[in-house]
Amino acid sequence: MSSRLPNMNRKVVMANRPVGLPKLSDFAIVEAPIPEPKNGEMLVRAHYLSADPLQRYRMDAVSGYGKVLAEGDVLKGRLVGEVVQSRHPDYKVGDFVEGMLGWQEYAISDGSTKRAEYAPGIARVDPKIAPISTSLGILGFPGVTAYFALLEICKPKAGETVVISSAAGAVGSLAGQIAKIMGARVVGLTSTQDKLDWITGELGFDVGINYRTTPDLLAALKQAAPNKIDAHFDNVGGDISDTILQHMAWHSRIALVGNMSRSDKTDRPPRMEYQQYLMSSRVLMQGFIVYDYEDRADEARRAIAGWLREGKIKYRETVVDGFENAPAAFISVMTGGNIGKQLVRLVK
Amino acid sequence: MSSRLPNMNRKVVMANRPVGLPKLSDFAIVEAPIPEPKNGEMLVRAHYLSADPLQRYRMDAVSGYGKVLAEGDVLKGRLVGEVVQSRHPDYKVGDFVEGMLGWQEYAISDGSTKRAEYAPGIARVDPKIAPISTSLGILGFPGVTAYFALLEICKPKAGETVVISSAAGAVGSLAGQIAKIMGARVVGLTSTQDKLDWITGELGFDVGINYRTTPDLLAALKQAAPNKIDAHFDNVGGDISDTILQHMAWHSRIALVGNMSRSDKTDRPPRMEYQQYLMSSRVLMQGFIVYDYEDRADEARRAIAGWLREGKIKYRETVVDGFENAPAAFISVMTGGNIGKQLVRLVK
Repeated sequence: MSSRLPNMNRKVVMANRPVGLPKLSDFAIVEAPIPEPKNGEMLVRAHYLSADPLQRYRMDAVSGYGKVLAEGDVLKGRLVGEVVQSRHPDYKVGDFVEGMLGWQEYAISDGSTKRAEYAPGIARVDPKIAPISTSLGILGFPGVTAYFALLEICKPKAGETVVISSAAGAVGSLAGQIAKIMGARVVGLTSTQDKLDWITGELGFDVGINYRTTPDLLAALKQAAPNKIDAHFDNVGGDISDTILQHMAWHSRIALVGNMSRSDKTDRPPRMEYQQYLMSSRVLMQGFIVYDYEDRADEARRAIAGWLREGKIKYRETVVDGFENAPAAFISVMTGGNIGKQLVRLVK
Repeated sequence: MSSRLPNMNRKVVMANRPVGLPKLSDFAIVEAPIPEPKNGEMLVRAHYLSADPLQRYRMDAVSGYGKVLAEGDVLKGRLVGEVVQSRHPDYKVGDFVEGMLGWQEYAISDGSTKRAEYAPGIARVDPKIAPISTSLGILGFPGVTAYFALLEICKPKAGETVVISSAAGAVGSLAGQIAKIMGARVVGLTSTQDKLDWITGELGFDVGINYRTTPDLLAALKQAAPNKIDAHFDNVGGDISDTILQHMAWHSRIALVGNMSRSDKTDRPPRMEYQQYLMSSRVLMQGFIVYDYEDRADEARRAIAGWLREGKIKYRETVVDGFENAPAAFISVMTGGNIGKQLVRLVK
């Protein structure tokens, strides 16, 4: 599939800086000649693009996560693809790599492996181990995030109760299953009946709560966790987190992994006075960024791959076909339209 | 001084549940016969009462800290005093003990040593080691609090920058000095020139900031901590904490030790959207209650006593004489009137 290249590359660019939830008109697809790899570089053809809530932050004028996009810039985003031309000594045509190479059909990589915040470092992907799409999901950064944020911050012990928000997402669905493997009782918060059915029916979560339809979330949490909550794997922030905070057990832990409740907001609505809760229950709350664990990522991938082989964990992907549908897939992630990992498939 | 007792005991009671900052009229001093120790009990005559901001919480109708006071109840509070009658096998007249025995001149103890949240457990005090007043301050719970909250949560390393709020209080002034011993750079926030002079002139804090007179606290923090803040020993909460949070370094630590900014408030004003800051800088924030370290308290007391002997740390006490002045001393602590530990002296 790599012998004959089209003439032109396509890229998703930020056409307008979005206000709040991005609209389709905030994106544009532009064409440009496929670049030529220089000596020491390779050309990668994307097979899957990864749609991640975190991409939204880079579209703000000011971000907590380093450099932001200017209008006209290619969207920051991860992809997995095949090397279709190589002038790099370590990579040959047909190899697969994953990296933050931007939302485009063809991307140049210099083979850098530095995978810090939004650095374009790549990692090899072995298609014999698992479908290459998993390198963007359960065996990629979402998997590494779930593994370390759960085991290094939430530290669930057997018999404890763990609450997972955004429980049917790529990260939350895995975090909850790992918590089950650790012997914890797992309560998942999500937004649709389909997702509830999946996490409780297939993934083995003990309780599922639809936070959109539950009139009194605190009462539902009290019922689901009569001995209070020992750990909260927090993907969402905002009011949901404030409610959960009111039912945390002594010496409980909160991993701040995502803040999706405000990633499509233009303002920063204030939060509940949290300090008294954290103090009286001696709660530990810690912010998590996966890149801090990059040097231990293989440890996570090996463990997750092992559980997959043993049938102890399952995963799902929500796949949209066609490069032109990438912006819609991103907006869908922002509004909870996905179950499991949201991907854009470019090559079947 | 124990051979002839007066007939009557005096107690500080909560006359009215305070709204916001307590007023003198919220307290009353009542008399009652001095109780007789039963078999297994002892009668303790208070020499010093301890005025602590935490007492305020118990005066609310609902508290994060267990049982609350009813109108007419004796104020919860610590004292150090002398055993003046004993029917307890392990204590004799003339022994000194410290404990949560309530704000009264004479108190009964059954010798329980359980020192959990507001439990009346006592500890022996050896007047040969240090003045007995220190059992309420630098060698008491404030000292143990400073020691463990700093070393177990803030974990200052040499060369790091530590910010201490309420830096001239009993806890903050010691925490800052221990941070200096650990080789950290220490920035103290306090409210008067006297306090600034003390913490920077005598205690060796590197920078003092008067948060009441500094027009732009964030700018002052940026100047005081050009490499950002590695640890925040948080005694105050509220707007000051929110400002400090905006200048925390990657992988920094925040020990939530006190929430004085709101302990005299009737409402719970919301807090800044903190999650993005905690996440992007991977901050650890943890609530601290000293009772969790009760079984290790001697470790702290030995270390602090050693530093005192070596002249590495200093302490101050703000002493008010006379039982009738106890309510005013408490109100003074709530408004920052003290330097170091606030005490009420009953026996000279």
